[in-house]
Amino acid sequence: MQFAAKDIALMLNGTVEGDALAAVSTLAKIEEAQPGSLSFLANPKYEQYLYTTNASIVIVNNSQQLTAPVNTTLIRVENAYSAFTLLLEQYNTLKLNKKGIEQPSFIHPSAQVGEDAYVGAFAYIGQGVKLGNNCKIYPNCYIADNVTLGNNVTLFPGVIVYFDCVLGNNVTIHSGAIIGSDGFGFAPKPDGSYDKIPQIGNVIIEENVEVGSNTTIDRATMGSTVIRAGAKIDNLVQIAHNVEVGSNTVIAAQSGISGSSKIGERVMMGGQVGIAGHLTIADGTQFGAQAGVNSSIKEPNKKWSGTPYQPFQDFLRAAVNTRKLPDLEKRVKELENIIKEMKNVQ
Amino acid sequence: MQFAAKDIALMLNGTVEGDALAAVSTLAKIEEAQPGSLSFLANPKYEQYLYTTNASIVIVNNSQQLTAPVNTTLIRVENAYSAFTLLLEQYNTLKLNKKGIEQPSFIHPSAQVGEDAYVGAFAYIGQGVKLGNNCKIYPNCYIADNVTLGNNVTLFPGVIVYFDCVLGNNVTIHSGAIIGSDGFGFAPKPDGSYDKIPQIGNVIIEENVEVGSNTTIDRATMGSTVIRAGAKIDNLVQIAHNVEVGSNTVIAAQSGISGSSKIGERVMMGGQVGIAGHLTIADGTQFGAQAGVNSSIKEPNKKWSGTPYQPFQDFLRAAVNTRKLPDLEKRVKELENIIKEMKNVQ
Amino acid sequence: MQFAAKDIALMLNGTVEGDALAAVSTLAKIEEAQPGSLSFLANPKYEQYLYTTNASIVIVNNSQQLTAPVNTTLIRVENAYSAFTLLLEQYNTLKLNKKGIEQPSFIHPSAQVGEDAYVGAFAYIGQGVKLGNNCKIYPNCYIADNVTLGNNVTLFPGVIVYFDCVLGNNVTIHSGAIIGSDGFGFAPKPDGSYDKIPQIGNVIIEENVEVGSNTTIDRATMGSTVIRAGAKIDNLVQIAHNVEVGSNTVIAAQSGISGSSKIGERVMMGGQVGIAGHLTIADGTQFGAQAGVNSSIKEPNKKWSGTPYQPFQDFLRAAVNTRKLPDLEKRVKELENIIKEMKNVQ
Repeated sequence: MQFAAKDIALMLNGTVEGDALAAVSTLAKIEEAQPGSLSFLANPKYEQYLYTTNASIVIVNNSQQLTAPVNTTLIRVENAYSAFTLLLEQYNTLKLNKKGIEQPSFIHPSAQVGEDAYVGAFAYIGQGVKLGNNCKIYPNCYIADNVTLGNNVTLFPGVIVYFDCVLGNNVTIHSGAIIGSDGFGFAPKPDGSYDKIPQIGNVIIEENVEVGSNTTIDRATMGSTVIRAGAKIDNLVQIAHNVEVGSNTVIAAQSGISGSSKIGERVMMGGQVGIAGHLTIADGTQFGAQAGVNSSIKEPNKKWSGTPYQPFQDFLRAAVNTRKLPDLEKRVKELENIIKEMKNVQ
Repeated sequence: MQFAAKDIALMLNGTVEGDALAAVSTLAKIEEAQPGSLSFLANPKYEQYLYTTNASIVIVNNSQQLTAPVNTTLIRVENAYSAFTLLLEQYNTLKLNKKGIEQPSFIHPSAQVGEDAYVGAFAYIGQGVKLGNNCKIYPNCYIADNVTLGNNVTLFPGVIVYFDCVLGNNVTIHSGAIIGSDGFGFAPKPDGSYDKIPQIGNVIIEENVEVGSNTTIDRATMGSTVIRAGAKIDNLVQIAHNVEVGSNTVIAAQSGISGSSKIGERVMMGGQVGIAGHLTIADGTQFGAQAGVNSSIKEPNKKWSGTPYQPFQDFLRAAVNTRKLPDLEKRVKELENIIKEMKNVQ
Repeated sequence: MQFAAKDIALMLNGTVEGDALAAVSTLAKIEEAQPGSLSFLANPKYEQYLYTTNASIVIVNNSQQLTAPVNTTLIRVENAYSAFTLLLEQYNTLKLNKKGIEQPSFIHPSAQVGEDAYVGAFAYIGQGVKLGNNCKIYPNCYIADNVTLGNNVTLFPGVIVYFDCVLGNNVTIHSGAIIGSDGFGFAPKPDGSYDKIPQIGNVIIEENVEVGSNTTIDRATMGSTVIRAGAKIDNLVQIAHNVEVGSNTVIAAQSGISGSSKIGERVMMGGQVGIAGHLTIADGTQFGAQAGVNSSIKEPNKKWSGTPYQPFQDFLRAAVNTRKLPDLEKRVKELENIIKEMKNVQ
């Protein structure tokens, strides 16, 4: 699809400076843009690119002054950054506007599918499933019996949701994520082998949560594993049985939270963080990447790092101090020699 | 489905105290139970909840004495914990009682499917595949050519098994796990690029093994990657080519074992542990979470932690000692000053 | 399939010593081989196995001398290792020789499928997709709209490729890998919740790249996440938005690279390595397993390890020094006592 400068200006309530028929089909950063791209300039730091960009159209602030000739068509608006963000969102909506039921798909007769749904080919919707309005179930997804989805839920291709789980409004789950597989619970037997502890709980994901690709969220042994509203979870994250992740908490890729731990609100975890089981982590806590957390944190809004975890500043100092160890040992050795000599003298 | 107190009592060989028609449809912990739930009390520590619970039915020991009035129906049995576990298992069996061949599915004419099978829609069963009795192949699974499955094998939705692999009786694989993908083997060429080393072995998973969601187990270069009987593997674990995991070994989420390492029996790994390649790990070894293991361990039943790994007690001490380093340096500095002064005096 | 010694000798331009009709159906290491296997001996270190092996046929160098009787059929060739590698490759090609379009599959009418394609059942090929020649799209794969694949691309079962991504010639992607899911980008709002930043870029994978099972490669926010020619990526690896991975770089399992980092050519990462965002890593850099990298590396071809990362030799020394800390403290304590005593004497 192509759009002309004059049409974009109309949509953004802006004015064209240059070729009103200049056409674009994609969006790009001003320094990387190719012909056929639309870009924007909001930060004065990047003004230089305005005079060298290959973008066919650039959105600028009304207040933008030119200090050299430009080879691109400008669209002037009140706020270039907001205008560009609006276009980004509309572009994305256009890309993800799937509708209708593709064949072959499997929808159990007892399932309820809301209005304006997309159900892709090879998607499976089990017995007693309820989908709200405007849900997008991409191909190769599997929704087990008695799962409930709110409105505007998107499951990208290959998402698996086990039975009895509940997803709220505006939840987005990326490809390959597994919601509601069994918690890792086994009871040791005298002969060294294990009995499986049945995992009969579920997973509840509240509204506005986004879950990344190939992330796994296990069902509770009993009760629910809960992801609170607005939490954002990256790719390849492990959330174990009976965990609770607080509202607006952000978890970067490859982090893992062990069974029954309770993570507060607005917590931020870097990548590859590990949280042991049965802990409570205070609101607003921040963990550096690869931190290993083996005890509860009660004081909110503090930053931690390292394994075992310690205050972030201590972690940085510890690394420096460890590097100075050989030198310290040399100094002790020297002291020992001096003392020995002094004693000999005496 | 709903069950009345009198029917449950009959099944458990127990006696009802209260409303014999009290009905439940789910199981819950006594402190979290809602009306319509069945719960149990075995540990005297939780007796307080017996008098406040919202559960409609609670299973208690015959010996349980009441010190206050209860608002729930009781079922008295010899051993409340065992009785509840029995119900958990039966509840789970009921949830997972799928049978029959759904359409559309793909079953190669040469494949053998045993009795009482479940083959979900969009499942693929390749040429020469053999399934034992009572196997459950959920939707969107892929079983490649010449794979053999024992009896009572469950593949949850989206499991992939590459060609020639062998799974024993009572094996359970959770969604998104990949069994038998190529080992990571490449031979460097003089120009800096790589030749692929063909990976023609397979994966053998012995009986009673459970594998978690999105875990990957690579096929051997030649021969077999082997998971011994009774091993339990959590989510997002990586098992490389030619690894052997011993019987009843337990591996927590996001751990990784590099190529050709041999893990003993009854080994326990916390989450995010890493084992280098070509190592041998003794029976009964325990690794704390995030341990990094770069050499073989010969002494059995020891506990290790840290990167590089060290005895667990040393790991804890090292963290404490590292924190004391700035203080130690101050003490050395003071000694140096004193010595300097003493020498000046002399 | 079975092959006789005389046929294999013909193919390898070798000569049979023993039973020209000895038949084999698989390949194995000489020390593990069972009857019906073909093996090889190239390294004199393993000559002992030649006299005890159960292999039905063993390929040996023309120059190989026998010091004891052998119970197996020999095929003599100029270079036994090369000859065996040739057989390995042909065996693998035979195993992976799928062709044709299986039903049911979903191929959008506007998609272009090249010659000699394999499209498995339950595979989905979206609008405007272009497949080169000799592509193998296994069952349960999903290729979104406007994706372009070169020649000889193999997607093993369950691979997901989001819209607009581009894969070059001879790319191989293993099961469950997700190419092009959204980058992890959210803008904080004053109330503590987040706005999603639309992710409208794509992923470009150049020729001869191999990607492991359940690995995730996110699309760029704008522009492209790029994997350069010849890179090899293992299982469960996370590549974030706008990352560039250099040519012939090798990344072991469970490593993660954060957003916008640029990894040079011929870099080697051990397992579970973590690279922070917006860094540049020099060509030929090597990282030990579990390294944590929080700043750019400009000097090429150096080896690093630890968290935070340090030169590999320092990392090894630091571990040793840390273990000596309690001893060092004891020595300082002794010095303090001596000094105290000396001062008392004075």
